[in-house]
Amino acid sequence: MAVQVPGFLAAGIACGIKPSGRPDLALIVSQRPAVAAAVFTTSRFPGAPVVVSRSHIRSGIARGAVVNSGISNVANGARGLADAREMTRILARAIGARPREIQVASTGVIGRKLPMEKLREGIPRAVEQLSPRGFERAANAILTTDLRPKLVHTRARGFSLIGVAKGAGMIMPRMATMLAYIVTDLAIEPAFLRAALRDAVGPTFNALTIDGQTSTSDTLLVLANGVAGNRPIDAGSARAKEFARALHETSHELCYRLARDGEGVTKLATVAVSGTRSDRDADRVARSIANSALVKTALFGADPNWGRIVQAIGAAGVPLRPSNLDVRIGGVQMLRGGEPAGGATGLRRAERAMKKREVAIEISLGKGPGRARMLTTDFSYEYIRVNAEYTT
Amino acid sequence: MAVQVPGFLAAGIACGIKPSGRPDLALIVSQRPAVAAAVFTTSRFPGAPVVVSRSHIRSGIARGAVVNSGISNVANGARGLADAREMTRILARAIGARPREIQVASTGVIGRKLPMEKLREGIPRAVEQLSPRGFERAANAILTTDLRPKLVHTRARGFSLIGVAKGAGMIMPRMATMLAYIVTDLAIEPAFLRAALRDAVGPTFNALTIDGQTSTSDTLLVLANGVAGNRPIDAGSARAKEFARALHETSHELCYRLARDGEGVTKLATVAVSGTRSDRDADRVARSIANSALVKTALFGADPNWGRIVQAIGAAGVPLRPSNLDVRIGGVQMLRGGEPAGGATGLRRAERAMKKREVAIEISLGKGPGRARMLTTDFSYEYIRVNAEYTT
Repeated sequence: MAVQVPGFLAAGIACGIKPSGRPDLALIVSQRPAVAAAVFTTSRFPGAPVVVSRSHIRSGIARGAVVNSGISNVANGARGLADAREMTRILARAIGARPREIQVASTGVIGRKLPMEKLREGIPRAVEQLSPRGFERAANAILTTDLRPKLVHTRARGFSLIGVAKGAGMIMPRMATMLAYIVTDLAIEPAFLRAALRDAVGPTFNALTIDGQTSTSDTLLVLANGVAGNRPIDAGSARAKEFARALHETSHELCYRLARDGEGVTKLATVAVSGTRSDRDADRVARSIANSALVKTALFGADPNWGRIVQAIGAAGVPLRPSNLDVRIGGVQMLRGGEPAGGATGLRRAERAMKKREVAIEISLGKGPGRARMLTTDFSYEYIRVNAEYTT
Repeated sequence: MAVQVPGFLAAGIACGIKPSGRPDLALIVSQRPAVAAAVFTTSRFPGAPVVVSRSHIRSGIARGAVVNSGISNVANGARGLADAREMTRILARAIGARPREIQVASTGVIGRKLPMEKLREGIPRAVEQLSPRGFERAANAILTTDLRPKLVHTRARGFSLIGVAKGAGMIMPRMATMLAYIVTDLAIEPAFLRAALRDAVGPTFNALTIDGQTSTSDTLLVLANGVAGNRPIDAGSARAKEFARALHETSHELCYRLARDGEGVTKLATVAVSGTRSDRDADRVARSIANSALVKTALFGADPNWGRIVQAIGAAGVPLRPSNLDVRIGGVQMLRGGEPAGGATGLRRAERAMKKREVAIEISLGKGPGRARMLTTDFSYEYIRVNAEYTT
């Protein structure tokens, strides 16, 4: 099955930004104007491409995206903004679009200027390489220190969908930059696309943590070009659910791949919290556990250390009655009503569960309707190595 | 100079809670009722001793404290509360006080019951060992996996002050439990003691992070027994500042020792933030940097990686104008007005500064009056080893 979506082209080339000579410039282009929705980093110090793309996305329409890896256009002041805008102009000119219809992203080392002469040469050259089968090359060209490209292709009744992403947990020059692009040939009403994206992002990208660090450049862009010829989907459409599910599943799968390819990651854990007053409270508890260095090192050591989980729950600041607290690790009840359960047999069973590649941590804080889920990873020697042994 | 404070006795013995046979029971006793103030963990899942001590401290008066190490009395339900109360009754009876005048703490493994038969035998035996010179033994008996006891002795005009503490960053069985006790022979008005404690704790204990994890048992107790014979100090007293400074300096020094003795710590960093709208905003930025796994691994690797600092600043959620942002590492300006400064020479100088045992990180976000400081540590291979290689 060819990895393509009708009406979309992509390319990935090396234009000389990465000293290694590896691919560092990706294009994704829709042959006709596509309905577009995006979410960006919440950082108060966003990169210049985020500032430019956020302004461009307001029109709700995009023709494509240009992404370079190797150098991140962050902390470059007015020059950075000018460079990001120029990248959109170059691509716009080459494909006959307006600059506002172009999204832009840069990922890699922070603190250098973009080599614009290379991009002025490279972007038109990449345009010549645009092809319906170019997504694998594009998925490759957006990587920095990711070990593997991440591409998800879904083909459903009458439409298809591709998602590509680059890794989280990257730092200078592997600064954490999560980039993801999802394209579909469906026709979708802009308001519904934005709503569906918001719904998909909450339990997937926004519920993923590798090192608790929010990048200056996180970007997720969805393009729907309508080439499938369907009546535009809105919230009331029969196909609304179908598209929302495809978007959610693609996001979910990309997050798993991001987590598995995270720095030094040896295992994943899902943290499911229920029984709080609100989803927001459940999220705070889940996030506190998922970001706990003590929980993450226990995961690495396959230690069914519920004391550390309890510590992280207590530290989340969410009201709780200790006598309502249940904790399960790998399906094994460790704490019931705030007191140890399961004894030595339970600890052994939980330890076996923790030796697996994926561990389920389940928390119940009572009878409230609130619930949340996070996907997290362990903290290993390799994480320290990757992040300490590099010197700028 | 003998390590003592008039009117205070202390003891540290082994009563058999630690399998190693090392000291595990400490007493601190005032020969007369002392004005008492304390702060406890903000965890929503506090240990039973915290629940009992918090209730007892309301009277504002204490005669002493009983502390065991080896087993932490957390997640033990009603039995845990009964045990903590019994510990206060045993000490109260032995020294002729009321149980409400006794503070209690337990630190160590979570998830076991306290061996009360050992404490029933041990506490009266420790009472027999009480001595004005017992503080070093007490400082030793409250440790779990700390490498060194932490004791600060201050002698000033007409009064003296001792502070002891046990380490942070400890987990199950080295669950993070910060315990600290400060005693003085000054007479101090209860309201002023509480206020002075609050003032001292903000920039010291509450500005310390080793692994961003809040323990279920953190306790800081201050006792002032008035044996010095001074007129009780209140906020209007000539000596108010003098005492506040001594309390602050003792807290500050204990925090440095806690940080230096933190798990896997090879170096410390002070993070000073200024120029925000409020101190609260500055604290959020300082805390985001101080708890960043990327900043902490950069510290370990002596990498002057201001990109990671900028990432943590942006992620703090505090409003900022990038063009106002200045960053210094080890006194070397790395970012001025949101753009790189100092060039390759600056990077080399900053790298040299980061090789030292203590690194200063200074952030200015503009002209606002807000400021805050945090003391943090690096993340090393040893941190992972200590926390991953232990299995319950």
